[in-house]
Amino acid sequence: MSSETLMTAPSLRARLQQFIENNTVQRILLALILVNAAILGLETMPAVMAAAGTVLLKLDQAILAVFVLEILIRLFVHRLAFFKDGWSVFDFIVVGIALVPASGPFAVLRALRVLRVLRVLTFVPSMRKIVGALLQSLNGMLSIAMVLGLVYYVAAVMVTKLFGEAFPDWFGSLGASLYTLFQVMTLESWSMGIARPVMEQFPYAWAFFVPFILIATFTMLNLFIAVIVNAVQSMHDDEHKEEHAADVATQQQLLLQMQQLQQELVQLRAELKKPIAE
Amino acid sequence: MSSETLMTAPSLRARLQQFIENNTVQRILLALILVNAAILGLETMPAVMAAAGTVLLKLDQAILAVFVLEILIRLFVHRLAFFKDGWSVFDFIVVGIALVPASGPFAVLRALRVLRVLRVLTFVPSMRKIVGALLQSLNGMLSIAMVLGLVYYVAAVMVTKLFGEAFPDWFGSLGASLYTLFQVMTLESWSMGIARPVMEQFPYAWAFFVPFILIATFTMLNLFIAVIVNAVQSMHDDEHKEEHAADVATQQQLLLQMQQLQQELVQLRAELKKPIAE
Amino acid sequence: MSSETLMTAPSLRARLQQFIENNTVQRILLALILVNAAILGLETMPAVMAAAGTVLLKLDQAILAVFVLEILIRLFVHRLAFFKDGWSVFDFIVVGIALVPASGPFAVLRALRVLRVLRVLTFVPSMRKIVGALLQSLNGMLSIAMVLGLVYYVAAVMVTKLFGEAFPDWFGSLGASLYTLFQVMTLESWSMGIARPVMEQFPYAWAFFVPFILIATFTMLNLFIAVIVNAVQSMHDDEHKEEHAADVATQQQLLLQMQQLQQELVQLRAELKKPIAE
Amino acid sequence: MSSETLMTAPSLRARLQQFIENNTVQRILLALILVNAAILGLETMPAVMAAAGTVLLKLDQAILAVFVLEILIRLFVHRLAFFKDGWSVFDFIVVGIALVPASGPFAVLRALRVLRVLRVLTFVPSMRKIVGALLQSLNGMLSIAMVLGLVYYVAAVMVTKLFGEAFPDWFGSLGASLYTLFQVMTLESWSMGIARPVMEQFPYAWAFFVPFILIATFTMLNLFIAVIVNAVQSMHDDEHKEEHAADVATQQQLLLQMQQLQQELVQLRAELKKPIAE
Repeated sequence: MSSETLMTAPSLRARLQQFIENNTVQRILLALILVNAAILGLETMPAVMAAAGTVLLKLDQAILAVFVLEILIRLFVHRLAFFKDGWSVFDFIVVGIALVPASGPFAVLRALRVLRVLRVLTFVPSMRKIVGALLQSLNGMLSIAMVLGLVYYVAAVMVTKLFGEAFPDWFGSLGASLYTLFQVMTLESWSMGIARPVMEQFPYAWAFFVPFILIATFTMLNLFIAVIVNAVQSMHDDEHKEEHAADVATQQQLLLQMQQLQQELVQLRAELKKPIAE
Repeated sequence: MSSETLMTAPSLRARLQQFIENNTVQRILLALILVNAAILGLETMPAVMAAAGTVLLKLDQAILAVFVLEILIRLFVHRLAFFKDGWSVFDFIVVGIALVPASGPFAVLRALRVLRVLRVLTFVPSMRKIVGALLQSLNGMLSIAMVLGLVYYVAAVMVTKLFGEAFPDWFGSLGASLYTLFQVMTLESWSMGIARPVMEQFPYAWAFFVPFILIATFTMLNLFIAVIVNAVQSMHDDEHKEEHAADVATQQQLLLQMQQLQQELVQLRAELKKPIAE
Repeated sequence: MSSETLMTAPSLRARLQQFIENNTVQRILLALILVNAAILGLETMPAVMAAAGTVLLKLDQAILAVFVLEILIRLFVHRLAFFKDGWSVFDFIVVGIALVPASGPFAVLRALRVLRVLRVLTFVPSMRKIVGALLQSLNGMLSIAMVLGLVYYVAAVMVTKLFGEAFPDWFGSLGASLYTLFQVMTLESWSMGIARPVMEQFPYAWAFFVPFILIATFTMLNLFIAVIVNAVQSMHDDEHKEEHAADVATQQQLLLQMQQLQQELVQLRAELKKPIAE
Repeated sequence: MSSETLMTAPSLRARLQQFIENNTVQRILLALILVNAAILGLETMPAVMAAAGTVLLKLDQAILAVFVLEILIRLFVHRLAFFKDGWSVFDFIVVGIALVPASGPFAVLRALRVLRVLRVLTFVPSMRKIVGALLQSLNGMLSIAMVLGLVYYVAAVMVTKLFGEAFPDWFGSLGASLYTLFQVMTLESWSMGIARPVMEQFPYAWAFFVPFILIATFTMLNLFIAVIVNAVQSMHDDEHKEEHAADVATQQQLLLQMQQLQQELVQLRAELKKPIAE
């Protein structure tokens, strides 16, 4: 009897898995995400909220309920393996945010609920592939990014010590300096907004800002180039290797045939010698 | 009799098609577009308008009349097939704008009349090719652009909810947020103009802006790289395939000759054996 | 007698050509340009001018005299062919500017005298090569640049008609609009400085600025890519063609040897048949 | 006896070298640098300094003492060869800065002490490699950078003469002009901040700024492209050369075998002729 219930349990899991991975169900879920995206957009419009606010909020909650159910089914189906898949964890967090009561210090979570819309990435395979490629292209950048990070940290500490007292808003703390140097790296108002005012008090401040910009932009440029070269290389490899393999195959065939020819000649010579020797 | 008129009608169409596709006619039309471009430029100068305004406007109208006639002929010649060609539709719209009475709410159309000058693109084949290539390079970007668009939309909804009330000018509505985030993506005044003022009320606003800029610029970078890699690949393919084909041909020739050699040897052996056997 | 003077004249020309193209003379001229560059830099410093102004100006004039003499010799040597070489014309203009009396309306020419320093480009072959490469890379960009130029012109006329009256400083004339749109293309203060103020009067102005920026940056991106692809291609060609030529040569050798082998076999067969036939 | 002390001296050196190049010692030194980086970061926080300032400063000095000892050992081990290695010189300077009494005019050196953290680059081989690659990629840019530098210098002298009197803050001296033009090259506030105010006094100033931006950005673009092309080329070479070498080897083998075949045929013919001749 207990064995029968054991038999039933996996069968339920299997049926639920089949259901949740069904194409039509997947398409309905994707449609719900898109509808949810539209609803979340409409919720930002006061006129629409005044006219149909209650309906929208109800719909939003209904869709959320479907999502929670979906996640629960997937959790039941995959158990702990669920958390081994990055996309599943992403879905879990993004849906989970909506369940935390967004009051008091957590009021900001209400805005994060919109992240739910990013689940489109999970459901459309082509987008999933692109995000995967983007993340992978980060790999090739890692070591240069670490060099850049080191330079960035050292520059922030330096600038805090140098200009921190005189310009507390920009360089008052390590955090403020990191933010300001990030702004400088994007070249936004670096001179008129930051460097020139600083230079009024420290006339040699340019000796920090100009080399910092040169080093930072040059290193970032090399980050970009690393990504480009990687992309070109992987494209090149895919195509080239195939072609090269074909070439090698033909040449091997040539060599083989040549060896057969030689053997045949040797045999011919042996055969010719025999009757002459007789 | 009716058959004769039927004969005449296609003959008129054919003659008109010959006329409108004639090289000289095409060159005259191109010259008219360039003259029109100059006239439209001159019309922006008050001094010129005071001196020769009536002449310019008359000329403008005369050229427009020629364009309308040209479109009508092409419509008569190609019938509905006219609307299947993107360039024809472009010409139709761009000339058509000039015919809409630009008064009252349509006053803005008066400015759009200048778009007529873009017909140069239709008439110069090399430019037509470039615009075609530009549009085609958009293809390779489509899927990344969709990911970027999704992130952009989610960020806009989030920012409207977070900062909308406090900064109605920048984030008051979904439209305002979309515009402001576009500005942030171009890095224009993102920090001194937008993020720093916001951070005075929401000290943790950097936790939105810095990741947003990193993600947006990194994704845009990948958009660019996709275009570069596509361009390099297609250039590479054109050249390489030709060369590779030549290589393969030579190798095939080698193999063939080798086989003939072998056959000849076999034959030689057979011939040698015969007399010996006798 | 007249024939002798005719003989002397070319001999003087030849000797002068030898003199002016002599390596040491060339090096002295290059050194003079560099000294002149330093002097022109020193002339901008009031303290130095107060201390040694007369000496510097005298030196400057002496060097200029040498340059004028050099150009005159080259003109005498090459006659009209002098003006067929772009670099010579460049030297001629750049030295010539210094001789125009820079007073009254031509006062600005005094500043242009510094352009003389750019003659370094003429004298250092490696720099000459790079400027040549830069100019050549413009070639590949020409057709896209024309499309961009057309879009730019049309946008400027449109914007003058739309916003000219309300914002005369930015869009009051075709020239002002062209300048402002150039600024917008560099993304400098396009939103906070230009588009947002315009949008206060014309709420739909974003419908012009956002597409304009997208089209302009995308087209510029393609300009850059065209240059990159050209550079990669030419680098690829140089290297690849050499290698490919070597491959083809080896394969041709293989084919040839194969044919010789076949002929030898044919001969062998013929020789073998003869005695048997006997 | 003196020979024995001579024997001892190198033995001490050898033992010290072994010690300093020991993997564990290297790892401890790297850990100390990272700890030092954290301490230097903490020193910028007033709250932390109030609570544990003395401890942090003591720790900082202790780590510095270790670094000085390490440098001294390496100096003793490698003698003058120490200064032939760029990384060693870098370590020497960066540690040495901390020993200079940072008072009076040298107060700025106190901030430069943070540079010590950059020694991470010396200790992590992968980072060392990247910095090496970055420096090497500068090589390919050198000649274009010189052209850019020349244009930059000429533009600065010109602009000082033209606008120096009217705008002393921006163009008052050669240094000020160089800084302002660097800002213009980064496109930061070039129009709204610099060019437009200048154009109010000199209406034709755009004739300097627009070409300067076009030339500078185009040359910088070519700098970038040079780096990209170099990177793609070196990647291509590494991979391609290997493959090509393999191809050439196979073809050589083919040729060799063909020659052996031919020789064998020649021999066969000779052997056949002999008995026939007999």
